[in-house]
Amino acid sequence: MTDFQAVLNSIYQDAIHATDKGVVASYIPELAHVNKDNFAIQLRTATGKTFGVGDYNTPFSIQSISKVLALSKAMSLIGEDIWKRVDVEPSGHPFNQLALLEIENGIPRNPFINSGAIVIADILVSHLKNPKEDFLNYVRELAGDTNINYNIDVAKSEQSTGFKNFAAANLLKSFKNLNNPVHVVLDFYFYQCAIEMTCSQLSDTFYLFANNGKCLQNKLHITDRQVKRVNALMLTCGFYDEAGEFAFEVGLPGKSGVGGGIVALLPDHFVITTWSPGLNKKGNSKLGMQALEQFTTKTKQSIF
Amino acid sequence: MTDFQAVLNSIYQDAIHATDKGVVASYIPELAHVNKDNFAIQLRTATGKTFGVGDYNTPFSIQSISKVLALSKAMSLIGEDIWKRVDVEPSGHPFNQLALLEIENGIPRNPFINSGAIVIADILVSHLKNPKEDFLNYVRELAGDTNINYNIDVAKSEQSTGFKNFAAANLLKSFKNLNNPVHVVLDFYFYQCAIEMTCSQLSDTFYLFANNGKCLQNKLHITDRQVKRVNALMLTCGFYDEAGEFAFEVGLPGKSGVGGGIVALLPDHFVITTWSPGLNKKGNSKLGMQALEQFTTKTKQSIF
Amino acid sequence: MTDFQAVLNSIYQDAIHATDKGVVASYIPELAHVNKDNFAIQLRTATGKTFGVGDYNTPFSIQSISKVLALSKAMSLIGEDIWKRVDVEPSGHPFNQLALLEIENGIPRNPFINSGAIVIADILVSHLKNPKEDFLNYVRELAGDTNINYNIDVAKSEQSTGFKNFAAANLLKSFKNLNNPVHVVLDFYFYQCAIEMTCSQLSDTFYLFANNGKCLQNKLHITDRQVKRVNALMLTCGFYDEAGEFAFEVGLPGKSGVGGGIVALLPDHFVITTWSPGLNKKGNSKLGMQALEQFTTKTKQSIF
Amino acid sequence: MTDFQAVLNSIYQDAIHATDKGVVASYIPELAHVNKDNFAIQLRTATGKTFGVGDYNTPFSIQSISKVLALSKAMSLIGEDIWKRVDVEPSGHPFNQLALLEIENGIPRNPFINSGAIVIADILVSHLKNPKEDFLNYVRELAGDTNINYNIDVAKSEQSTGFKNFAAANLLKSFKNLNNPVHVVLDFYFYQCAIEMTCSQLSDTFYLFANNGKCLQNKLHITDRQVKRVNALMLTCGFYDEAGEFAFEVGLPGKSGVGGGIVALLPDHFVITTWSPGLNKKGNSKLGMQALEQFTTKTKQSIF
Repeated sequence: MTDFQAVLNSIYQDAIHATDKGVVASYIPELAHVNKDNFAIQLRTATGKTFGVGDYNTPFSIQSISKVLALSKAMSLIGEDIWKRVDVEPSGHPFNQLALLEIENGIPRNPFINSGAIVIADILVSHLKNPKEDFLNYVRELAGDTNINYNIDVAKSEQSTGFKNFAAANLLKSFKNLNNPVHVVLDFYFYQCAIEMTCSQLSDTFYLFANNGKCLQNKLHITDRQVKRVNALMLTCGFYDEAGEFAFEVGLPGKSGVGGGIVALLPDHFVITTWSPGLNKKGNSKLGMQALEQFTTKTKQSIF
Repeated sequence: MTDFQAVLNSIYQDAIHATDKGVVASYIPELAHVNKDNFAIQLRTATGKTFGVGDYNTPFSIQSISKVLALSKAMSLIGEDIWKRVDVEPSGHPFNQLALLEIENGIPRNPFINSGAIVIADILVSHLKNPKEDFLNYVRELAGDTNINYNIDVAKSEQSTGFKNFAAANLLKSFKNLNNPVHVVLDFYFYQCAIEMTCSQLSDTFYLFANNGKCLQNKLHITDRQVKRVNALMLTCGFYDEAGEFAFEVGLPGKSGVGGGIVALLPDHFVITTWSPGLNKKGNSKLGMQALEQFTTKTKQSIF
Repeated sequence: MTDFQAVLNSIYQDAIHATDKGVVASYIPELAHVNKDNFAIQLRTATGKTFGVGDYNTPFSIQSISKVLALSKAMSLIGEDIWKRVDVEPSGHPFNQLALLEIENGIPRNPFINSGAIVIADILVSHLKNPKEDFLNYVRELAGDTNINYNIDVAKSEQSTGFKNFAAANLLKSFKNLNNPVHVVLDFYFYQCAIEMTCSQLSDTFYLFANNGKCLQNKLHITDRQVKRVNALMLTCGFYDEAGEFAFEVGLPGKSGVGGGIVALLPDHFVITTWSPGLNKKGNSKLGMQALEQFTTKTKQSIF
Repeated sequence: MTDFQAVLNSIYQDAIHATDKGVVASYIPELAHVNKDNFAIQLRTATGKTFGVGDYNTPFSIQSISKVLALSKAMSLIGEDIWKRVDVEPSGHPFNQLALLEIENGIPRNPFINSGAIVIADILVSHLKNPKEDFLNYVRELAGDTNINYNIDVAKSEQSTGFKNFAAANLLKSFKNLNNPVHVVLDFYFYQCAIEMTCSQLSDTFYLFANNGKCLQNKLHITDRQVKRVNALMLTCGFYDEAGEFAFEVGLPGKSGVGGGIVALLPDHFVITTWSPGLNKKGNSKLGMQALEQFTTKTKQSIF
């Protein structure tokens, strides 16, 4: 049997001695002053064991990782109707997202590019009574942890600098693919992205996607088929313009965020979360990608 | 010598009997309920004569025609610095304006596509003390007529439906090509487009572009060279995706608006304004285009 | 243990009674006159068992499925150098492939879109002594079957109608990403696509991708890591603009062709091939997609 | 009255002392070894006078300037039917010509971008008995000079390096907007572009566009209305991505070629040709553009 702790320790040693740790996202001051030397891996297995190394109890901004949680909540609210408003195909090319949106008449390529995530946020705003509060409670419930919170400074910072998201939301609105006012949807969206969690909390939260829709507390949130959909989307669209590379190097469904976090999972086996704030050129955590590649290579645990 | 009045009368007869008068713009209620049967031509010659036929004293929404006036005001304020932020090349393709903006890193192709006009509006907001008031006074001064006004209902209506303009402005902002807040710039921009004028007033206002930069009151507003720039831009970019066709059929620098107005001019000779609210498929006044084509054919007055 | 034959039989019954069998590709006469009622599934397990239903011994044109075999041959010839000339990211949007190629300076998004496959063909033409003969022998060796052949009529037909491929090849050439003359590369490419095989032969041929690089005859052709790369590419890029949908519905790496064939596989477990000539709107076999979805649902054999 | 010779002399003095003469096109060896110091201006007035300075009797490769002559010949052959296959709108963006062609279903934006010129070449191939011979005779007739010839080395050189044109032609073919075989059309097209003329010959050849369709020998080749069309197209589309700038700086209909030639004209007044092989970043003759700007500024002879 694999000694997971030994594998994590070995990856950790490589990571802390890496000379190139990537570049910390700087478009928001709150993200920019995070220490690049933070590094963590945390693993939760389907058999209930947990392993960790490094700063896995330090919270960080989950950013785009939240898009997966928003999608699963939307699935539990309106099910298949989501796909009338968002497609499920990989897109690549973050640089011309708005062009794609124009060409495809306001239907975002998938729920993990920003325009798609904004449509999902619109759905949550429409169907949740107190969107911010209810969504946070959903995340807390998945994690079984009431200490999870929004970082309001980060949310406000995005609010005042996220012009490309405002452009996308207005374009969606012009195509009648946004039901609520732009500022209301984006206010929710920026909060959603500004949730802070530790690696441990993220592994716990994502456990339902490795456990057929049941969270750690054994409550069924989404169906088997919906879990399959989420995992297929993470595999094909979870890493901006590096999804193909990740599918090969790591071979797991996963999702990254510009805060430097990555969550990946093998259905029925485990959830693994890494955190290293330095990003590579495509916007994914440089050491996190490498750590996951090493993990699946060393443990031979991947979907292929 | 050409009997201009006879030419206008003859065009008028054709126009009022036309079976296909195009389609009135409907995206704003205030524009939609304009009577399609309105038709007018008004001509002002460099020798000081005026000729008119039809409803040339009825005011209508000048919309994009205002972009030329905003440009000339910006020229008088900051001169050549404009061209650091906007290009001067024709673009075609209104459908993928945002795509173009992304590809060209936030530099709009020219000041008459919406994104370009928004940059010009940003310049006016930065350099005018009371932007709305000062711009209206500028237009009134050009026309020598203090009765010209904004239609506030039209402006407000655009404010609440112009999502594509909000998208463009936010995209400009993300490329740092907008110095003022999006809502401030667009508030001004929607007012600018919502100016109402009659054909007579428009001919008077545009007189400086046929008169080497001097308005009707003989005051010099922009230089000879700036007039040449404005006229070259009108000729190559004044008619959305129909600039080439207009250059051929009419052969005059000109600018159209979705309110159904068109102003065109022959430097040192005349300014001519038409109004017919029905638009063709490319968004230009259907009968207005035909009227101008007939006018330059019958009078042999064009740049070619 | 799953009764695979029973599962295949049940899918077969549904398929032959389907009212909508899609539309047979008609751009080549040789493909157009194939009978839409053909239907087959064939399964080969890692334990050496085979199961089949329908016309699984009738040969058909494998078309784009050949791209996977060309890629594996190129891998065994030049290894990682391939990725200097082709990327590994999903692309979507078949309609604007040339646009993508222009934007990305002649580097195709992945080896399974036509421009990427043409680059792979160029590599084979450069490195094989007798490209057509050698490639056919490679395929025959993988399948352990010397009866596999090119359909020369199909190849010639593509030669005289494949203008979009000539456009792509010339564009690649203009970016210096094609070393051999356009007509030489495309001559090879059209032959490669015109290989005919039965479902059984295809399952046998693709066996190496489910068997860590060893073919049926137990010869190692490509490394473990190369197999992982091929499978990751099939999963993210194997189905034109329906890769995301296939990843979800079926959840297996696979590749389709306009001849109506689909090969899919679960590493270490099985290869499965379907054939039904009618295509859906996205160019994939309509009943083949459905059959594979039913198969993985009923057997619970997918990567998720 | 303007002393044209003095104006030309003064421009010539500036030009030969210019420190930055641009960069000679190098994609064909035959064009690359032209001496950058060549400089010429030649003027023919409607009153029959000619003026020249510099190397105006040295032949050079007219390249894209030939597109105007091909268009006028096509006009005299099939008239308005041309516009079913080519549009008349400016396009800008030479870098994504193929993308535009894909988006617009194979209808080139105008007859002066390469794809449009290839469609015109296809028309000539269809309607001329001996296309190369007949077209050369047409040009000779316009110029009244039987010494004009193709440079066969240049034509053959383009034949073996013009991959982007082969890409465009094949794409046109895939959209069924090319009736003849690609290699036949491009063979003609490359010859057409490889005509060599002196500045004097070019001014003579283009005389019909300043003379209502009648050539120097007073023969009517195209109608008034067709001349207007050609001139409108030159004004809006004659200078790649610098048409707007040329319309402003020079204010004349004109056409440039990568051989360093530019022809421009003022209807009823004159034709002027410049030649300076160094190009600016947008592919137009650097000193030629400047010379024409100075000419129209000094003589106040422009359309504005």
